[in-house]
Amino acid sequence: MTVGQGHIVQGHTAQGHTVQGLAVRDLAEEFGTPLYLYDGAVIERQYLGLRERLHPAVELFYSLKANPNVSICALLHGLGARAEVSSLVELETVLAVGVPAEQILFLGPGKSETEIEACLKAGILAVICESFDELALIDRTAERLGVVARVVLRVNPAFQVKSSGLTMGGKPRQFGIDEEQLLAAPGLAGAHRSVRLTGVQAYPGTRFLSEETLVDNIRRILDLAERVATRLGFEPELVDVGGGLGVAYFAGELDLDVERLTAGINPVVDAFRTRRPGTRLAMELGRYLVAHSGLYVTTVRSVKESLGERFAVADGGTNHHLTAVGIGSAIRRNFPVRLLNRDGAQQTARWNLTGPLCTPSDTLAKGALLPADLRAGDLLGVERSGAYGPTASPVFFLSHGYPAEVLVHRGRARLIRRRDRVEDLLGPQILHDFHDGFHDDPTAERSS
Amino acid sequence: MTVGQGHIVQGHTAQGHTVQGLAVRDLAEEFGTPLYLYDGAVIERQYLGLRERLHPAVELFYSLKANPNVSICALLHGLGARAEVSSLVELETVLAVGVPAEQILFLGPGKSETEIEACLKAGILAVICESFDELALIDRTAERLGVVARVVLRVNPAFQVKSSGLTMGGKPRQFGIDEEQLLAAPGLAGAHRSVRLTGVQAYPGTRFLSEETLVDNIRRILDLAERVATRLGFEPELVDVGGGLGVAYFAGELDLDVERLTAGINPVVDAFRTRRPGTRLAMELGRYLVAHSGLYVTTVRSVKESLGERFAVADGGTNHHLTAVGIGSAIRRNFPVRLLNRDGAQQTARWNLTGPLCTPSDTLAKGALLPADLRAGDLLGVERSGAYGPTASPVFFLSHGYPAEVLVHRGRARLIRRRDRVEDLLGPQILHDFHDGFHDDPTAERSS
Repeated sequence: MTVGQGHIVQGHTAQGHTVQGLAVRDLAEEFGTPLYLYDGAVIERQYLGLRERLHPAVELFYSLKANPNVSICALLHGLGARAEVSSLVELETVLAVGVPAEQILFLGPGKSETEIEACLKAGILAVICESFDELALIDRTAERLGVVARVVLRVNPAFQVKSSGLTMGGKPRQFGIDEEQLLAAPGLAGAHRSVRLTGVQAYPGTRFLSEETLVDNIRRILDLAERVATRLGFEPELVDVGGGLGVAYFAGELDLDVERLTAGINPVVDAFRTRRPGTRLAMELGRYLVAHSGLYVTTVRSVKESLGERFAVADGGTNHHLTAVGIGSAIRRNFPVRLLNRDGAQQTARWNLTGPLCTPSDTLAKGALLPADLRAGDLLGVERSGAYGPTASPVFFLSHGYPAEVLVHRGRARLIRRRDRVEDLLGPQILHDFHDGFHDDPTAERSS
Repeated sequence: MTVGQGHIVQGHTAQGHTVQGLAVRDLAEEFGTPLYLYDGAVIERQYLGLRERLHPAVELFYSLKANPNVSICALLHGLGARAEVSSLVELETVLAVGVPAEQILFLGPGKSETEIEACLKAGILAVICESFDELALIDRTAERLGVVARVVLRVNPAFQVKSSGLTMGGKPRQFGIDEEQLLAAPGLAGAHRSVRLTGVQAYPGTRFLSEETLVDNIRRILDLAERVATRLGFEPELVDVGGGLGVAYFAGELDLDVERLTAGINPVVDAFRTRRPGTRLAMELGRYLVAHSGLYVTTVRSVKESLGERFAVADGGTNHHLTAVGIGSAIRRNFPVRLLNRDGAQQTARWNLTGPLCTPSDTLAKGALLPADLRAGDLLGVERSGAYGPTASPVFFLSHGYPAEVLVHRGRARLIRRRDRVEDLLGPQILHDFHDGFHDDPTAERSS
């Protein structure tokens, strides 16, 4: 399948103005807006669609960074997904959900000693190590705790992938250890007494929409893993082939064809498994599992015209959905946007959908086709918004706070993250008193 | 003064490695990192430096969007600053600080009815209105409450300012009402029974570093205000000339010269006051008052080389300081960065300063000059970081949470916002149970 042809697949998160038969208008009224609405059936479809076709030897790890909500994690865990986490809170989240420690990988370029300690105490499958410095820190921490740490080496591969996505391999990066540095360190496996090297990980890029590129990536990573493990003299118990499965957001993009993707991957996996039947395989999936499921719902507060352009000013904007500003691209492109509360309106006019911030860059969509008669009170939805939503956005900008999040599953809508209240924003702040002519008076201090 | 010549003014927020005599190293140890450190003396210097030179008729309003921390607001209120707010929480913040209602302006393109109601109940100086739709909403809300709302009209001026900053006037915008639409609505002043038009506001751009541009802006806005008020037939009680005073962040930029700026503004104000002695004047200041005061302090967790480039991976990054990625520019430019815990090290090497996120764009500085022997445990500071810091950043990304904020004032360091704890992130989430074969079982629900 090629990129840059055809049009976006209209796999709406909601059919018409409903999600699993529930009217978005009713949900907006019940939970208020701005609101993130997730369709659990779509997450199920994405996960199972891949799971049922992919070689069973490839274990699927949900990357919480895409959407760390505890109920989204629980849903995916219930489906069988393992977990890839990158912070103490993400680790706590999956432990709370009940993901067994041996199904958890921890990855990220700037791990703290506290995080490493928590991983070792929990006994997770492996810490994915990003640098020689970090390897030494893991070793010291494990020694202090009296354990041996299972460590997967993240490699910055020498190869580079040519594609439309964000390339990470073959360039100077903060992630992993350069392949050539590893190949020049043959004694590494025995260099740390409290570390056992158990595998190799690489992540050559993200947002790939070409099945061929993804298959090629996996083939190269498997080769890389064998090359590195052989050179360093350890038996790879696990190879993590990263992820990078993209989602079509913009006009001209096409979603991945899961049949075609798995038809390409499975023989590669088979060949590897024939050579190394005892090596487990991991794939990381974030955006691919949850992006389609999400709808960001805003209410139009006012409409206006300015110098010939139409503006719909909504109650939420880039403070909740910075990703919609356009990712991996210098050119402004719109996520799919639609009217959610009325039928029959022809999409005949170009609108700028803006939010409540005081900057022109607070624009969720520019020149999007929507009905000409848009008005205050209308509900507008940004589709494919289940990944990198509020957690990847400046939710405290102008002190508006975190939006509500609702998961619809099995025909039932449930709040999975309440909207921030005034006290959520003011509570952690401390008011000191500078009224008295700016003299320091310790007795005047008080907390708010 | 011209832009694009000379070098950044080295007005460090801290002399050497101290803030008001307190060692940054000690503060980092006491409060932990990542940490925002604000120097109250610098805020005082910025405020008083302008206040003492600017025409006394111009009232200074602190724009909370730059930094809404309640103690920063208290400090500025103690100095005499009024407040410009843009959300319910910002309004609650300044009320908590004790800013009198008649010193508060509320501005922003997507006001809710709740926000407007809170403004009217508090009796603030004026609501700054951004559209005809909003004017009608203010009128309805005021009528419901049985009050008359004081409303300042925000105008999208027909003129455009040529400068290095972010231009807002003369373009299609979500802000304000186009000048020509207002001039075509002569009956507006009497059109709403519960609204009294009391003034005009315009904000033609931000981040201006040319005194001449700023003076010219103010002259044009004062003209605009008289033109609009005369046409609409109301007496302007208040003209808000916006702000847009820039701060030099990047190599080649120069900070504003306050002598030169006020020498240009004051005669313009004098001339206006001669014509309209009863009209109050307001100026909005956010970035200008607080940017210089802030230092974002991170600890290096590991250093590494990748394909010939040096990386210092720190415990905080764009999740706390997205603004440092480069504002208003397609070209990557660095905020000033320096080593904070050691002396005598020559800045001879180019480093990429990256954070804990799993994206290459988590880069606070690219190719910044720093000592070659940077190592794990070193403290690195991003200067001029007092404005648009954590609140303008995706603090929940990878669930790392909000950093600690400390204000040093009169030689004393005080925590003004505690670091987020695990429960701050998990508490508002609700865990639903999908374990039992994905059947819906209401009795299985529980909150975390």
